[in-house]
Amino acid sequence: MTSKQTIDTLIHAEWIIPVEPANQVLQQHSVAIKGGLIIDILPAEEARQSYLAEKVIELPGQILIPGLINTHGHAAMSLMRGLADDLPLMEWLTEHIWPAEQKLVGDDFVAVGTELAIAEMLRSGTTCFSDMYFYPDVAARVAHQHKIRAHISVPVLEFPSAWANNADEYIKKGLEVSDQYRNHPLIQVGFGPHAPYTVSDESLSRIRILANELDATIQIHLHETAQEVSDALAESGKRPLQRLADLDLLSPRLQCVHMTQVDDTDLALLSEYGCHVLHCPESNLKLASGISPVSKLLEAGVNVALGTDGAASNNDLNLLGEMRTAALLAKAQSGNATAVPAHQALRMATINGAKALGIDRVTGSLECGKAADIVAVDLNDLGLQPLHNPASQLVYTDCSRQVSHVWVNGELLLDDHQLTSFDLHTLSNKVKAWRDKIANCDKHTT
Amino acid sequence: MTSKQTIDTLIHAEWIIPVEPANQVLQQHSVAIKGGLIIDILPAEEARQSYLAEKVIELPGQILIPGLINTHGHAAMSLMRGLADDLPLMEWLTEHIWPAEQKLVGDDFVAVGTELAIAEMLRSGTTCFSDMYFYPDVAARVAHQHKIRAHISVPVLEFPSAWANNADEYIKKGLEVSDQYRNHPLIQVGFGPHAPYTVSDESLSRIRILANELDATIQIHLHETAQEVSDALAESGKRPLQRLADLDLLSPRLQCVHMTQVDDTDLALLSEYGCHVLHCPESNLKLASGISPVSKLLEAGVNVALGTDGAASNNDLNLLGEMRTAALLAKAQSGNATAVPAHQALRMATINGAKALGIDRVTGSLECGKAADIVAVDLNDLGLQPLHNPASQLVYTDCSRQVSHVWVNGELLLDDHQLTSFDLHTLSNKVKAWRDKIANCDKHTT
Repeated sequence: MTSKQTIDTLIHAEWIIPVEPANQVLQQHSVAIKGGLIIDILPAEEARQSYLAEKVIELPGQILIPGLINTHGHAAMSLMRGLADDLPLMEWLTEHIWPAEQKLVGDDFVAVGTELAIAEMLRSGTTCFSDMYFYPDVAARVAHQHKIRAHISVPVLEFPSAWANNADEYIKKGLEVSDQYRNHPLIQVGFGPHAPYTVSDESLSRIRILANELDATIQIHLHETAQEVSDALAESGKRPLQRLADLDLLSPRLQCVHMTQVDDTDLALLSEYGCHVLHCPESNLKLASGISPVSKLLEAGVNVALGTDGAASNNDLNLLGEMRTAALLAKAQSGNATAVPAHQALRMATINGAKALGIDRVTGSLECGKAADIVAVDLNDLGLQPLHNPASQLVYTDCSRQVSHVWVNGELLLDDHQLTSFDLHTLSNKVKAWRDKIANCDKHTT
Repeated sequence: MTSKQTIDTLIHAEWIIPVEPANQVLQQHSVAIKGGLIIDILPAEEARQSYLAEKVIELPGQILIPGLINTHGHAAMSLMRGLADDLPLMEWLTEHIWPAEQKLVGDDFVAVGTELAIAEMLRSGTTCFSDMYFYPDVAARVAHQHKIRAHISVPVLEFPSAWANNADEYIKKGLEVSDQYRNHPLIQVGFGPHAPYTVSDESLSRIRILANELDATIQIHLHETAQEVSDALAESGKRPLQRLADLDLLSPRLQCVHMTQVDDTDLALLSEYGCHVLHCPESNLKLASGISPVSKLLEAGVNVALGTDGAASNNDLNLLGEMRTAALLAKAQSGNATAVPAHQALRMATINGAKALGIDRVTGSLECGKAADIVAVDLNDLGLQPLHNPASQLVYTDCSRQVSHVWVNGELLLDDHQLTSFDLHTLSNKVKAWRDKIANCDKHTT
């Protein structure tokens, strides 16, 4: 008899979509995990012969996919979920969200809101989230506690907040957070200049220089609405993307969030400089911001990834649902039912996200040598039957609650639908307490 | 002490949105049910004093809403869920759906597919579904077995199918189904001329006369795509809606499915004649058919209700999700974040559906004297916290799997997430058997 190799975890699944290579669906295959890494993907029969695993997980009727990557959000804003819906963007921001933030945002608000968001994201298959909010040090700390992969974009604005008084202080504090997590296996820190209309040329240039020195990413809300673009044109004669180009900010480091407004010049710039577009379709719909021309961007070779945005404008952090919305919307927007087919939508939610965040060597697909960031979805549910096409079922049916297991870096964080690292009772009480504080504050401001 | 009135069921809920009156959210109220009817809605404290119920249900943290009404679908097509996605409409129909239907559709196909659809719809809060498919007698039989409310539109085409050879036979057999269910408490039968391009003027005129005689509804796929309208214009110089107007078919009996193409003349006709629009946003997106101008229709006083369409073009029958998509899409389509707010979206999924199907005296809202068609949604889930606004949470978060209880006509059909009238094991095996037959058939035709 041949001696078996000892490993940590062996997962036997009915189907596996590794994402790389593209459009592949493996049947009756297994994933072998050791030291947090995927060391093998092979037919189940061979796997049973070759490996002796500390933990063996059998998943009949279930599918394994790479962990989903939520490339844009404001985790702590989960505490303001549904606080002031169905309002125009500016009324929503100036009369509800900003006043509440000015009064309430601090360490505990961000800690509780981020923990709530991480719980929701893990349960719906997200293994890596990108965050842009005040107190990024707190968001990073909570992500570290719960062992989820995180990309923290330190916010930079010219305006004061409870966290910092001006752009210099945001940047200074951001650099401290960046130093603190320099060698962290799961947490990566970049810059998050809020938007062209809230950050000066000077600050943007400083961020460019620092990002190059630190080999860090830059995430910015860009061309979110037609108004933003027309205001910029009226003020400066330049579209915001052109202004960033003139400031030499366009590069594969740049993550452009939203981009509902894309003309031919924009398209050429994005593709020439390898900038990434972080598409948040549900937030764009809900705030009536517009619809990003995703098919056009993809055809031009632009890397498009997905984000939920904050739960105050979505109102959930379900990236499986976002993937579905993105696929459906792209077809209507392009007038072509073949646009963004199921496998491509899944790529947007996984490997494209990893590319956008600059971590595609580590995650984004199920390949040997990559981190074991893996999600299992149970397709046995009657609402997902009959099963003619696993990829299609995953993207086009309502299956977020079918996520059964989630691994990040080989750690099992969701075990048969149960979060392994949360005290949900305590969290729920903290969330309820914040609910009351926020409601009172909103009542008095409006 | 005062003597209490004896009733069948008393439900104590944290919140109730009765839909009528509009925009109302009751807190700590109860619903009293007797003989299948809602006989009282009152504060929980009073309810406990006034009623002695055979069954008392406590729903802390849960919300009661009227049962959802899915006004357009093809239930049996659930068996073709995900069969051939990401294809243009005509290739999808002619190379996959129609060949499969021609070979396989019959009594058992429709029975199993409809049972599968009813199970999925009940679990996600639908208490009444409208169906248009071959073997409407079978769909009605299965709906009767499972005690769900159903509106059956008998299909009429000039083309043969396994069920009938020509329009005359479709109509003749349809009249038999109509007779059979004339006095049924839950099932109502109307006419379903498939579309303007598949039904002749003669047949449409006959249907108009019969519908008037029988006081029956007429449901038709109309202005689904720009192509349909331009083809009609090229052929006859008339838009399809105008042709129906000339045939004297426009009236409150008429249910226009899709209507992604609406010009000012269409808008005037729809509103003048009180025709209903059955909006199926997810199917319209998936097939790249277009986006119905819902806000414009509502502003013009047109009654707009919601449908999922069949699971082969959606791919689920989750009307809560459809409500969310409709609300989000209306904002982007009208460029107005205040368009179709949460309460209005809920009306589209309930009372507007009842109006469209001509049963709003019986159902569509929680009011004394109406049938007890009621849905409970559990808002305790962490993914729905914090709870600032119940209506908003219901519409904008992912809560289809939070539907805990469903009553139709006072009968409890979903009890704490469990279907009460299904043998799911047997159903699942039948569905799997059909999956294999359909896959083989599709393999040989493509």
